[in-house]
Amino acid sequence: MKSLDDVLQGIDDTLDESVARLFQLLRFPSVGTDPAFDGACRDAAAWLKGLLAEMGFVARTDETTGHPVVVAEYAPKGLPSHAPRILFYGHYDVQPPDPLDLWESPPFEPQLRKDADGEKRIFARGASDDKGQLMTFLEASRAWLKAMGSLPFHLTILIEGDEEGDSTHLDRYLAKNRGKLNPDVVFICDTGMWDAKTPAITTRLRGCIAEEILISGPSKDLHSGYYGGPARNPIRVLTKILGELHDRNGRVKLPGFYEGVETVPLATRRKWKSLGFSGRKYLKDIGLSIPAGEKAYAVHEQLWSRPTAEVNGVYAGYTGTGSKTVVPAEAMAKLTFRLVGRQTPGQVRKGLRQFVKERMPADCKVRYKSQGGDSMAVNIAEASPWVRLAQNALAQEWRREPVLMADGASIPIVGTFKSLFKVDSLLVGFSLEDDGAHSPNEKYNLTSFRKGIRSWARIIDRLAQQQEFRTS
Amino acid sequence: MKSLDDVLQGIDDTLDESVARLFQLLRFPSVGTDPAFDGACRDAAAWLKGLLAEMGFVARTDETTGHPVVVAEYAPKGLPSHAPRILFYGHYDVQPPDPLDLWESPPFEPQLRKDADGEKRIFARGASDDKGQLMTFLEASRAWLKAMGSLPFHLTILIEGDEEGDSTHLDRYLAKNRGKLNPDVVFICDTGMWDAKTPAITTRLRGCIAEEILISGPSKDLHSGYYGGPARNPIRVLTKILGELHDRNGRVKLPGFYEGVETVPLATRRKWKSLGFSGRKYLKDIGLSIPAGEKAYAVHEQLWSRPTAEVNGVYAGYTGTGSKTVVPAEAMAKLTFRLVGRQTPGQVRKGLRQFVKERMPADCKVRYKSQGGDSMAVNIAEASPWVRLAQNALAQEWRREPVLMADGASIPIVGTFKSLFKVDSLLVGFSLEDDGAHSPNEKYNLTSFRKGIRSWARIIDRLAQQQEFRTS
Repeated sequence: MKSLDDVLQGIDDTLDESVARLFQLLRFPSVGTDPAFDGACRDAAAWLKGLLAEMGFVARTDETTGHPVVVAEYAPKGLPSHAPRILFYGHYDVQPPDPLDLWESPPFEPQLRKDADGEKRIFARGASDDKGQLMTFLEASRAWLKAMGSLPFHLTILIEGDEEGDSTHLDRYLAKNRGKLNPDVVFICDTGMWDAKTPAITTRLRGCIAEEILISGPSKDLHSGYYGGPARNPIRVLTKILGELHDRNGRVKLPGFYEGVETVPLATRRKWKSLGFSGRKYLKDIGLSIPAGEKAYAVHEQLWSRPTAEVNGVYAGYTGTGSKTVVPAEAMAKLTFRLVGRQTPGQVRKGLRQFVKERMPADCKVRYKSQGGDSMAVNIAEASPWVRLAQNALAQEWRREPVLMADGASIPIVGTFKSLFKVDSLLVGFSLEDDGAHSPNEKYNLTSFRKGIRSWARIIDRLAQQQEFRTS
Repeated sequence: MKSLDDVLQGIDDTLDESVARLFQLLRFPSVGTDPAFDGACRDAAAWLKGLLAEMGFVARTDETTGHPVVVAEYAPKGLPSHAPRILFYGHYDVQPPDPLDLWESPPFEPQLRKDADGEKRIFARGASDDKGQLMTFLEASRAWLKAMGSLPFHLTILIEGDEEGDSTHLDRYLAKNRGKLNPDVVFICDTGMWDAKTPAITTRLRGCIAEEILISGPSKDLHSGYYGGPARNPIRVLTKILGELHDRNGRVKLPGFYEGVETVPLATRRKWKSLGFSGRKYLKDIGLSIPAGEKAYAVHEQLWSRPTAEVNGVYAGYTGTGSKTVVPAEAMAKLTFRLVGRQTPGQVRKGLRQFVKERMPADCKVRYKSQGGDSMAVNIAEASPWVRLAQNALAQEWRREPVLMADGASIPIVGTFKSLFKVDSLLVGFSLEDDGAHSPNEKYNLTSFRKGIRSWARIIDRLAQQQEFRTS
C-alpha cells in the first residue's frame, strides 16, 4: 500500500508537469474587472473545468451575474458518512497588469527564471494571486489521487472570476446554491507565509470597500487664461478633500469612521510582538522609512489591526506630454477603505459622503460609484481543530512552527462563507511579501509552489489518518 | 483708382474662398506640444509658406530648436523710407484636442454650421486660436493687394509653431535673427472682442509659467492590503500639497508669491467698472455661480489683475474601469501660474519649491519639470499712436467704440518683442468668450472672420492715408 511518502515523491518527480499546467492557466489574461478580458475569463474557466474533469471530478462551469464559476465535485462511493465535506475556494481572475512598461517579461507570457540567489521564480500576472496558489491544492489532490486512488473526504472545488472585482456576483450565486454546498469547512489558498522559511495560517483579515468620486465644476473644460481665478477648478476641490482625509497623526477624519474598531487583546499583541516583525525592514524593502499610518501604532499593528483610507488613483485634466492651460470640467479619484473589527461598509460610506459634502462648493457636484466587493473584517478562532491540523502538517513540511498571522488584505468570501454556512475558513497560503501581487513583475517562488503542493498533501494525509482512526 | 470700399467689397465677394483657405489650414492636426504631430506641424508651416509665396511674399520656413517658423517678407520698391516696418505675428500650432469624445465633429475636419441663432460658425481645433485669427490679417492683406496692387508698409509675416508649448524655441530664434527683423510695431491677432458686437484692443496680459511635479514614495506599486497604512501613498502627499495651495480666502499660499503684484490704478478700475462686466453671467455661462478667486476682488479683477495657481492635470495609480487596490509608487500634477505686475517666473518657482519641501515626508522624493514658455505680465501704453489708429479703424467697422481691455491669458511673445525690439505690440483680435479655445468644439464665428478681415483692411487703409499725408 502506498503512503504519504509516495505522494510526496510523486509531487517532486512530476514538478515540471505541474509547472507546465500552471503556465497554461497563467497564459489566460483573465483580468476580471475589465470587460475587454471577458473572453479570457471564460476561457480560463473552461480550461479549469477541463483540468478537473480530467482529474476525475464531476466538473462544470455555472453562469453568474459576473464571470462563470468553475464547480467540481468529488464524492467517491464508499466514504464513511462522517467523512468531512470540504469546499476548496480559489479565483482565476487577476488584477490588471498595468503599468505594462514596468514588466520585465510580458504579464501573460509566464517565465521561470533562476535568480542570482539560486531560487527559481515564476513571473506572470496571477503567478501568486491566485493562480499559483490555487494550483498548489489542485496539484496536491492530483498527486494524492494518482498514488492513493481516492481522496479521504467529500470535496467541492469552487473557483470564481470576480474576486478582484465585484464579489456580489459570487455572493448571489452562493445564496442561490447554498443547499448544494453546505461544507464543514472551507479551504482557501490565497494568503502568505510569515517569511520565506516560516509557514503561516491566517486568522485575521481586514475588510475592504471601494468608492469612486467624480467632482464636476464648470460645464466644460476651460482655458485657464480666460477663466483661471474666478472659475472653480474641480481638481482644487478634489485635492482639498483628499488632502484632508487624514489628520496630522495619520487618523482618518471621516465622521464615525472608528466606530466598531476594536482594541486587539493584550495576549495577541504580545504574541505579535514576539514575532519580531521589523517595521524598519518592511518599509526599507519598499524604499520607505517613515510609517505612514496612525502614529499611536507600530507598523505591524497599523497593518493588521487598524483601518485605512487609501486613494488608489486620481485623474483629471491634461496628463499627456507638455502642458495644457486647462481648467477641467471634472476630477476623479478612486478610493478604498480597509476595515477592522465591526466597522461596516455602510458606516464608512455615510462618513465619506458627509465629509465630502462639508467641503463641496455649492456650485460643484459630486457623484459616487460604489465598486461592489464590500467585505467586513474577519477573525477566525485560533483554537479550531482545522487550524490545529494544518499547524501540524505545515510544521512537518517546513520544519518550523507556523505563525498564526493577521493579514492586512481582504478576502471578502471568507465573511460570506461564515454567514452562509456558519463555518470558518482555513487560510493556508505560500505567497511571500515580495511576490508583488497587484504590482508589475508579480512572481511565485518555485519553492512556494513545490512545498505548497507538498503541504496540502500532508494536510490531506492528516485528514485520511483521522478517517482511519474514526473508522477503525 | 480703387478705394477702401473696393477692398471691402472684394472681401465680401470672395469670402467663400477665404473660408476654403482657412479650412485647408485647419485640417493640419498641428498639435505643437505632442511629438506625434511633428509632421503635421511641418506640413502646416509648408502650406503657409506656399500661401504667402503665392500672395507675392518672399516666403521661407526657418528651422528652430522646436517647430519651423514661417517667415514671409513684403518690401516693394518705391515705398518711402519713412514707411513703417510692421511685423505680423501668429501661430499655427494648436492645443491638443482631447477629450475627443466631447467633440460634435472631428477636431481636424472643419465644419461650417449655421446655428439656431442664425450665426454661421466654423468648428475645428484652432478655428479661433490662432488659425482663424491669423488668417483674418492674411486675407485682408490678400484683398488689399488684389485691389490696390501693393501694401503701404514694409511687412514681415512671422508664424510660429510653439506658442502653446515651449516659447523658448522662438525666443532663441528671434535672439539670433533680431537684426533682420527690427520692426516699428508688432501686429498680433490672438485676442478677443469685448462681446459679439463690441471690438477690443488688449493692453494688459497676464504672464504664465508651467510646472510639472512628480512625487515618488514606495519603490514600486504596492497592494493596499499588504501595505496600506504603513506605506506612504504619494497621492496622499500630492493631494495634501495641492489642497493647501490656496487659503480660505482664495489667496495663493506660496511664500513670496505676491511680491511685485501691483494695485491697479483707480482710474483703470473705474473704467473697468463702467464696462458693466457681469461676473454672474460670466460664471453662469460655464455652469458656475460662486467666484473661486481671491475673495477681496470682483470677478473681472480676479481675471484681469490677479495672479493664480492652477492645477491643470493630475494623474496617479489606477484610473481604468473598476477598482484596483494599489498604493502607487508615483503621483503627478501639472500646474500653471498666471502672473501679473512684476511677478517673475523665478520668484514663483522658488516659492513653489519651498512650499512643497515643507510638506514632503523625508522618505519621499519630488521632481520638477519646468515646461518652458515662461512669460511675465504685459502692459501696453494705451496712448500709443498705434492703439489710437486701431481704435478709429475698429470703430468704423463695428460702429462701436472699441474697449481697451485686459486679458487674463498670456501671450509670452509680446514680452519677448518688447525686450528684443523695444516696441509694443498692437493686440487686435476677434475671438469671443464662447469660442472654446482649448476646449472641445472650438469655433470661430463667421462674423468674427469676415469683419476681422474687414477690420484689418481698414487698419491698412489708415496706414496708407498716413503715408499719403506724409508723402504729399
